[in-house]
Amino acid sequence: MTPEATLARFREYMVGPTRFMTLLSCFELGIVDALRDRPGMTAAELGDAVGVKPDAVEQLLFLLVKEGFVGYEDGRGYSLDALGGVPERDLKRALAYMNMIKVVALRQLFNLTESARTGTLVGLKELYGAEGTLYDVVAEHRDLREAWAKLMDTVTANIDPWFFGNIDMPSGAQVLDLAGNTGLGAVHTYQMKHVPGMRVTTFDLPEKETECLENFRAHGVAEHCSFIGGNVFDGIPEGFDVVLIKHFLDMFDRDAVIQILNGVHKSLPVGGQVNILVPVYPEDVTETDNHNVDFFPAFFIGCTMGQGGPQKLSTYRNWLEECGFEVTRTVTKDPAELPQDVIPVPAILSATKTA
Amino acid sequence: MTPEATLARFREYMVGPTRFMTLLSCFELGIVDALRDRPGMTAAELGDAVGVKPDAVEQLLFLLVKEGFVGYEDGRGYSLDALGGVPERDLKRALAYMNMIKVVALRQLFNLTESARTGTLVGLKELYGAEGTLYDVVAEHRDLREAWAKLMDTVTANIDPWFFGNIDMPSGAQVLDLAGNTGLGAVHTYQMKHVPGMRVTTFDLPEKETECLENFRAHGVAEHCSFIGGNVFDGIPEGFDVVLIKHFLDMFDRDAVIQILNGVHKSLPVGGQVNILVPVYPEDVTETDNHNVDFFPAFFIGCTMGQGGPQKLSTYRNWLEECGFEVTRTVTKDPAELPQDVIPVPAILSATKTA
Repeated sequence: MTPEATLARFREYMVGPTRFMTLLSCFELGIVDALRDRPGMTAAELGDAVGVKPDAVEQLLFLLVKEGFVGYEDGRGYSLDALGGVPERDLKRALAYMNMIKVVALRQLFNLTESARTGTLVGLKELYGAEGTLYDVVAEHRDLREAWAKLMDTVTANIDPWFFGNIDMPSGAQVLDLAGNTGLGAVHTYQMKHVPGMRVTTFDLPEKETECLENFRAHGVAEHCSFIGGNVFDGIPEGFDVVLIKHFLDMFDRDAVIQILNGVHKSLPVGGQVNILVPVYPEDVTETDNHNVDFFPAFFIGCTMGQGGPQKLSTYRNWLEECGFEVTRTVTKDPAELPQDVIPVPAILSATKTA
Repeated sequence: MTPEATLARFREYMVGPTRFMTLLSCFELGIVDALRDRPGMTAAELGDAVGVKPDAVEQLLFLLVKEGFVGYEDGRGYSLDALGGVPERDLKRALAYMNMIKVVALRQLFNLTESARTGTLVGLKELYGAEGTLYDVVAEHRDLREAWAKLMDTVTANIDPWFFGNIDMPSGAQVLDLAGNTGLGAVHTYQMKHVPGMRVTTFDLPEKETECLENFRAHGVAEHCSFIGGNVFDGIPEGFDVVLIKHFLDMFDRDAVIQILNGVHKSLPVGGQVNILVPVYPEDVTETDNHNVDFFPAFFIGCTMGQGGPQKLSTYRNWLEECGFEVTRTVTKDPAELPQDVIPVPAILSATKTA
């Protein structure tokens, strides 16, 4: 890579924040919807329609025209170009993710350096006066909670069918959904992976219990699902033979992951299974179709946890073996099978306690 | 452009903010300097050297390895790859720009939508409690001032020789540097474009006078340069035959630009000249080697002015003609001649008052 190419790549990085917000603002301002309803509007007409000075409309749309998202012709105004061909469901998914990035990450990233130095969320504290992780803070801050929850529900709905299609569930399985939040994972387990005699228990902080039990009732699975309150790092309940760990290990540094896996190992009988769903970096990190490294390190360290980030599949495999598990199956999602706007490339690791 | 390609492009936008801060943080944390001093360090050794947990060092470096900026080999640690070949002077320039974007724009962009709706800097107000534009606020906020001033000095030093090499200066010229700030433009005018009998006057807000006159003395041009205090929108001083407008017109919407140009027209004698230096959008906005539209609309509307943004050269030409000028010469910088990290692609418009 020449110095010139390196500097050109720096410039791509430099325009990253402005590009991101220019695109998102054109949606937030209603400009895209207005053009969908009535193609051919001028900047003046668009400005009237969305309540923004035409000069600003024209400025923000320059980028969308450059990208071919929106078209412009002298005398014929603006119209949706490539954006007009994207199904609404896809746009909604992408916009939920963009909104999450804006609310949970954009401003917080300013303090990434100090967050990396201290292992704390300096940006979150400066903006919200809050100590702790994003997950501690969402309860009290609706903007963070809504941006986050909307995204996680979308992610879970899209990825759980793939997860449950790729794990084995023995008859009579007693399943523990580790850090199962308010029960959606348990509901999906019952709905997507039902076997005779199965019981699913959500394990998470005690304050999640009420909402979790309500969710079980609302989904008609209250007879088959239950809740145990506790903290993963203080000990994991025994009496289960299948443990699910979804969207969780990537939140922690190595020491904490090892602690969690040791805890799971201790809680399981020999022959018990653990099934892990986690985004992974490609073994060759220079693969360009995997965007996990472009996003997650800064996101976890600077915006949500003050630590953590995904690993390569081989790293998780090594850690599982180090903790007394035999890895029986791994599946990495082919990035080409994911919608092209989706960042996380997930993998599944299934492992058995050997001794 | 297919829906798939459009969504893939959205993903490039989504990772823009995290990519930007991950790269900048690796410099801020001292990781790049540490690797320059001692190639081959492991994450643990780097962590020790810069005071950051090795897990975080490893996470942040994944992206730099993906990009080929930094190399990594098992057992041989990290070393500078492409970054090792970039001259220090180029890196410093790029980092000054990145720091400016971080301090002046990154967090402020969160409020771009509201800034576009209101024409005010909502983000600047929320972060600093300050009303007004960035230029009103820098005096009181050192972080903003330093990030901004460092960048503008670099930009001015790089671009002024090109500007003065491309304008004519008649013997005995009485030059007014409009919105000339604290006099650097006037100093450059005298140093780079000296003609017999020339006099250069900086015109800007009265509070700039002291620092401006100090600058004239420090540069040994106090005999040939002077200062007039005032506001461009309240009337432009007469008695000059050359007006320079550098880095200024792009800060305003059309109405204000027309007001400025009408004011300059009124102040000049017939035959008087105006020379404008301003970033421009390409006539075909889809040209990919011009990054002005990727940056300036959001930057001006959301972070510095609440309005403004560059225009196409043809637009500035039309506005000049509308205000009674004949455009005598235009030059647009060839983007290929700029260092590859530099965002602004500038142009010069020279025009004469015809009647």
